[in-house]
Amino acid sequence: MLTTAQTAYETLVAKARELGLLSSCSALLAWDEQTSMPTGGSTHRGEQMALLAGLHHERATDPKIGELLSIVEASDLVAQADSAPAANVRELRRAFERRTRLPRELVEELARTTSLAQQEWIAARRESSFPRFAPWLEKVVRLKRQEGDCLATIPDSGSQTGGSHNENARYDALLEDYEPGAKTAELAGLFQALKVELVPLIRQIGEASVRLGRAGSAGDQILRRTYPLERQKVFVEAAASAVGFDFERGRLDVTAHPFCTGIGPGDTRITTRYDQHQFGDAFFGVLHEVGHGLYEQGLPAEHFGTPLGEAASLGVHESQSRLWENAVGRGRPFWSYWFPVARRVFYEALRDVSLDAFLAAVNHVTPSLIRVQADEVTYNLHIIIRFELEQALLSGDLPVGELPSAWNQKYGETLGIAPGSDAVGCLQDIHWSAGLVGYFPTYTLGNIYAAQLFARAKSELEGLDGSLERGQSAELLSWLRSAVHRHGQCYRPRTLIERATGAPPDPSYLVAALRQKYEELFGL
Amino acid sequence: MLTTAQTAYETLVAKARELGLLSSCSALLAWDEQTSMPTGGSTHRGEQMALLAGLHHERATDPKIGELLSIVEASDLVAQADSAPAANVRELRRAFERRTRLPRELVEELARTTSLAQQEWIAARRESSFPRFAPWLEKVVRLKRQEGDCLATIPDSGSQTGGSHNENARYDALLEDYEPGAKTAELAGLFQALKVELVPLIRQIGEASVRLGRAGSAGDQILRRTYPLERQKVFVEAAASAVGFDFERGRLDVTAHPFCTGIGPGDTRITTRYDQHQFGDAFFGVLHEVGHGLYEQGLPAEHFGTPLGEAASLGVHESQSRLWENAVGRGRPFWSYWFPVARRVFYEALRDVSLDAFLAAVNHVTPSLIRVQADEVTYNLHIIIRFELEQALLSGDLPVGELPSAWNQKYGETLGIAPGSDAVGCLQDIHWSAGLVGYFPTYTLGNIYAAQLFARAKSELEGLDGSLERGQSAELLSWLRSAVHRHGQCYRPRTLIERATGAPPDPSYLVAALRQKYEELFGL
Repeated sequence: MLTTAQTAYETLVAKARELGLLSSCSALLAWDEQTSMPTGGSTHRGEQMALLAGLHHERATDPKIGELLSIVEASDLVAQADSAPAANVRELRRAFERRTRLPRELVEELARTTSLAQQEWIAARRESSFPRFAPWLEKVVRLKRQEGDCLATIPDSGSQTGGSHNENARYDALLEDYEPGAKTAELAGLFQALKVELVPLIRQIGEASVRLGRAGSAGDQILRRTYPLERQKVFVEAAASAVGFDFERGRLDVTAHPFCTGIGPGDTRITTRYDQHQFGDAFFGVLHEVGHGLYEQGLPAEHFGTPLGEAASLGVHESQSRLWENAVGRGRPFWSYWFPVARRVFYEALRDVSLDAFLAAVNHVTPSLIRVQADEVTYNLHIIIRFELEQALLSGDLPVGELPSAWNQKYGETLGIAPGSDAVGCLQDIHWSAGLVGYFPTYTLGNIYAAQLFARAKSELEGLDGSLERGQSAELLSWLRSAVHRHGQCYRPRTLIERATGAPPDPSYLVAALRQKYEELFGL
Repeated sequence: MLTTAQTAYETLVAKARELGLLSSCSALLAWDEQTSMPTGGSTHRGEQMALLAGLHHERATDPKIGELLSIVEASDLVAQADSAPAANVRELRRAFERRTRLPRELVEELARTTSLAQQEWIAARRESSFPRFAPWLEKVVRLKRQEGDCLATIPDSGSQTGGSHNENARYDALLEDYEPGAKTAELAGLFQALKVELVPLIRQIGEASVRLGRAGSAGDQILRRTYPLERQKVFVEAAASAVGFDFERGRLDVTAHPFCTGIGPGDTRITTRYDQHQFGDAFFGVLHEVGHGLYEQGLPAEHFGTPLGEAASLGVHESQSRLWENAVGRGRPFWSYWFPVARRVFYEALRDVSLDAFLAAVNHVTPSLIRVQADEVTYNLHIIIRFELEQALLSGDLPVGELPSAWNQKYGETLGIAPGSDAVGCLQDIHWSAGLVGYFPTYTLGNIYAAQLFARAKSELEGLDGSLERGQSAELLSWLRSAVHRHGQCYRPRTLIERATGAPPDPSYLVAALRQKYEELFGL
């Protein structure tokens, strides 16, 4: 063999880095499109993005990569499963197989269809007309079935159970794009266990809220007082900076839809939106994106472009955002430090508010129709509904035409409320129109991982609550860097969580944390 | 022949567009670096830029392009010299030859050397130490000689005099990068004719200034009063918008060094900087960049990526910025409309100022050491000095070590002043450290073209002054769109000016305009 394994590996890494650089150019163009681009630039931006995507695809599917992978896979370099070469090769192979197994026509039809479907979804949601969107959802579902069937033929090198040749093979295959190694059956088990705890908990919190006069809009009314925009900006930047977001290696801007994007080492950008009558939108939105941003800022820069330099999964990414937003950011220790500051900065709004009343407001729970506005507890039921429905759509058990009634029925059963229209029902999310099937469960996985990681951090870091009460979170960030961030994709999510916490993913940490919080707050 | 000329031409255009898209990605990354990028992102940004530059170079020097060009050149498609294919092929050939003639080692050594030389220049300027910079300038000059000699071997298809095999061949070859078709001897003639008029004019203006009590810092003191930043921003945006800069297809941001960049059709970005004690910095800076921006916004979008969609030259680009900044923006008609507005907006600064006093201030002339701060009249002498010195450096007539004394001597002879240190003398500009030799003359060419174009516009557009007095400049912009912008690189700069004005480039229009203005203002 002319190419030694070491040389082949180095070439692979160089190619991966080049692909990473190309993607990071696209990421910057996408960020600019949301934050800065004049409206007149959109056609040209589309052409720039298409060119970069084309160059990326051309290079990422180069058969040479397959050859290099085979050389390294046959060598001693990958003998140790968690060595850098083994982990990188495992994930590069996975990405290469997924990219090259799909027929070009399917990829192109998916791109075309989801692009048009998103336009139609916007119009259908505006008109609250599911029939307008239905034929497009039909097409997307049909194509995702084909994609799932096609990807299900890939032997999963990272799975302990072997291939995915079972009734969930199709959905399993799609899950892989967002949560490598996750299986439908496993998620269904976790989610069921969570649901049976959450439903009664939500009822108990509701009863306590009524008893305390905090039900409905009374529960968080103080957060809808006037919070001047310029003061919100300063306060939220102060909090973001204090919890460790490095503004020398990142920035915060305003966009219609908040997001976090890692442009590359030293350049992580988050966004938010401000409403002077909604304190929580910007504040918790920023803490959430800061959580994502801290993960990006904590990935090992020396591995940029290779799997070891990338986040483990969407679920793990979400665990970082939820940990800072909810476990830290809605907790009493955090506000013990920050509430006096907030009362000084927003004196008109908070002069007559106690810490207890403020904590009750930021932890207000009430069943609602819109996922992105849902509180920490009910949020997971929104996800579980979508997880169940998208599996049924994919398998064909649920015909597309029956989605609205199935949706409304599940909201009634699970949250006790019913959408008044499809706009606030099954048309509320962009995901399915964009072809994102298998994406929703990662949100709740993130909540499960977050609670489990935070519980472990508390047990390992003596006096963590005390630190947070003094406005100190550096040791928590160090712990996350060490337990999660620095590993990149060295471990699959399940293994990563197990190594970090000593236990496989388990919803009981989340349930316990919620139960404890609401017992303390509302005396359930 | 298997490839028909038409197919070959279409392939060429497609390849040119792809290169244009790649360049426009680099342009966005560069804009972001100046406006938004966190400091921690600079290493990664360098790697992104290098990748895009590498991809561009790889594609732009593909031998296939040479083959396609040959096919089209041998066909009827290029029979009409000013047809789209003929013009595009002429300029694509020119670019291809220039890219492929240079040995790879020379290109790489130039990139390496100028990168380091710019760092050293920054340090040398800070320390005002020419000896620190001298060895780097030596290296740059040596490499630029090699580059000039190498490029001088290209037969110039666009020149009427044939090749450049004469004593100026080397400098001619470098000029081509910035002002295609321009010749050293021709520029020397234009500049000499300008100089013999400007030197006595500056003396006369100086004498009149003394007589009127407007000499030195008294001349523009009112522009250094307090102009609140937020008000400056609104006022300058209003003026930019009023003269036609389309903010739906562009934007204005703040950077340390103002510039204009055309990201692509529908996306032209300009920048400025604000100083509350320097009204002119932002206002005339923005009008200048707006002039560049209007040119970019006026290029034919359908030709994006090909020469017909690109600016004719740096000189022509500068003519557009100078026309709006100086011919329009420092004129009495413009301020007849805008001065009452300015007096309302900046009431504290301008309440006791008359239009005449304001016009005298914005047209204040005084010999000074720093090019970028020079007034409209003396500016050209700064350029002519650099034009003469860089020729002498390139030919070897001026050894690098003698640059400071030659510089100081020329400033004494031409402007009657002497730099107190090299920092404000021969170390003030970045250009030579960046390998930009042959670039300086395009600034004064721009001034010459601007005056000539404006004179023609006035003679063709009846009542242009009256329109400007009513705050109307749409007809002037239309005229420029038609005479200059829409042509892209269809014509070489000299031909473009001749077609637009009926005469070849001629400094007498600039001299006449300046003389008339200062006779009216100061009664020379």
